[in-house]
Amino acid sequence: MPDTALFAMRASHLGKSARSRAKLIDAALAVFARDGLEAASVHDIARHAGMANGTFYLHFKDKDELTSVVILLVAAEIAREMNEAMAGIDDAVERVSLGTRQFINIACTRMEWGSAYFQAFWVRPELRSEVALYMRRDLERGVAQGAFSIKVDDFLVDLVGALVIAALFARMKGTAGPEAGSKAAEMQLRLLGVDAAHAHEVAWRSLESRSVVEPPDPPSSTPK
Amino acid sequence: MPDTALFAMRASHLGKSARSRAKLIDAALAVFARDGLEAASVHDIARHAGMANGTFYLHFKDKDELTSVVILLVAAEIAREMNEAMAGIDDAVERVSLGTRQFINIACTRMEWGSAYFQAFWVRPELRSEVALYMRRDLERGVAQGAFSIKVDDFLVDLVGALVIAALFARMKGTAGPEAGSKAAEMQLRLLGVDAAHAHEVAWRSLESRSVVEPPDPPSSTPK
Repeated sequence: MPDTALFAMRASHLGKSARSRAKLIDAALAVFARDGLEAASVHDIARHAGMANGTFYLHFKDKDELTSVVILLVAAEIAREMNEAMAGIDDAVERVSLGTRQFINIACTRMEWGSAYFQAFWVRPELRSEVALYMRRDLERGVAQGAFSIKVDDFLVDLVGALVIAALFARMKGTAGPEAGSKAAEMQLRLLGVDAAHAHEVAWRSLESRSVVEPPDPPSSTPK
Repeated sequence: MPDTALFAMRASHLGKSARSRAKLIDAALAVFARDGLEAASVHDIARHAGMANGTFYLHFKDKDELTSVVILLVAAEIAREMNEAMAGIDDAVERVSLGTRQFINIACTRMEWGSAYFQAFWVRPELRSEVALYMRRDLERGVAQGAFSIKVDDFLVDLVGALVIAALFARMKGTAGPEAGSKAAEMQLRLLGVDAAHAHEVAWRSLESRSVVEPPDPPSSTPK
């Protein structure tokens, strides 16, 4: 099942109305990614979902209402995946590194989400504050743990966040590859006062062990 | 003479056509700052300059042509002021710090320019590459001087630049005050591998001695 039908899939056990709504959300994600948040029209979204314009307005007042719903759902989904990846990690150095790397990976893997999310990040202030709060907690944790030597304020959160967004943007443009997350995380940690060797080690540490996907069984024909 | 007439002032000794052209450029700066680069119309710009639409088209093919001219002039003017401030400084640590602080100060002092410039920065790729090249030279100088311990590539330039833009944005929003430049510079230097104490000292060093304006004479009534 393609990712482009994630919300429809999750609504598959629900009633007809909830399923139509979910289809429109999936369609909006696809159209936002293709045409941009501003240029996307109700007509195109309805058409992509295989519905008449009238059906759209049974579910949403207008494009703005749908946009808000989509952005919150995407933010919630990314937060859910991030929380899963970060569960049980107490060390702030590792949390900041992992947060940056996972965020960039998740946003890029779901390229269509990434692009909608990235645009929304600049357009919707409420999303900025949501992400900022999440980051701020890890920064404060690092200071409390004695790992970061810097004053945590809105300005710091803005600048540390700008590194994530710039790295995501570079990867989307194609001027950076899969290493973008590790490079950005290493720079963040140095900025926060972690010594260069430790920053490097943590930022480039394998993500394998953090994967929420079970590794495949080793092929039985290969001797140990 | 207000800053809003800078180009008209410089053209005051030139012929009538050059003076009209300069007036349109000043008007464009004011209207871009007020309405944004996208929303500004030829009609509003002509009106602001006290001219008929027809006169506008004697000087520029369309808004796009004027926009390109304005952006290049602003970039050249900022570069000129920066070069003046940085002349004779060889130490890359000081250059990066001073570059960031001066850029943010200049952009904010000329708030109307800052906002046009900031918008243009995202819209016009040629401006990004111009600024990127300038920054890259100082980063490479720092590595050659043994002050920065990091690989200089497009990604680094992007991320170091993102810190400047985020700091400028914070200052424009009003969530940061005049200290924004020093804070951003300190973070950049730490990211680049400068040790925390040195980064702090350089980033918060007084700009007084660098001012291109002559300091006033000490009051004669005050004994040494």
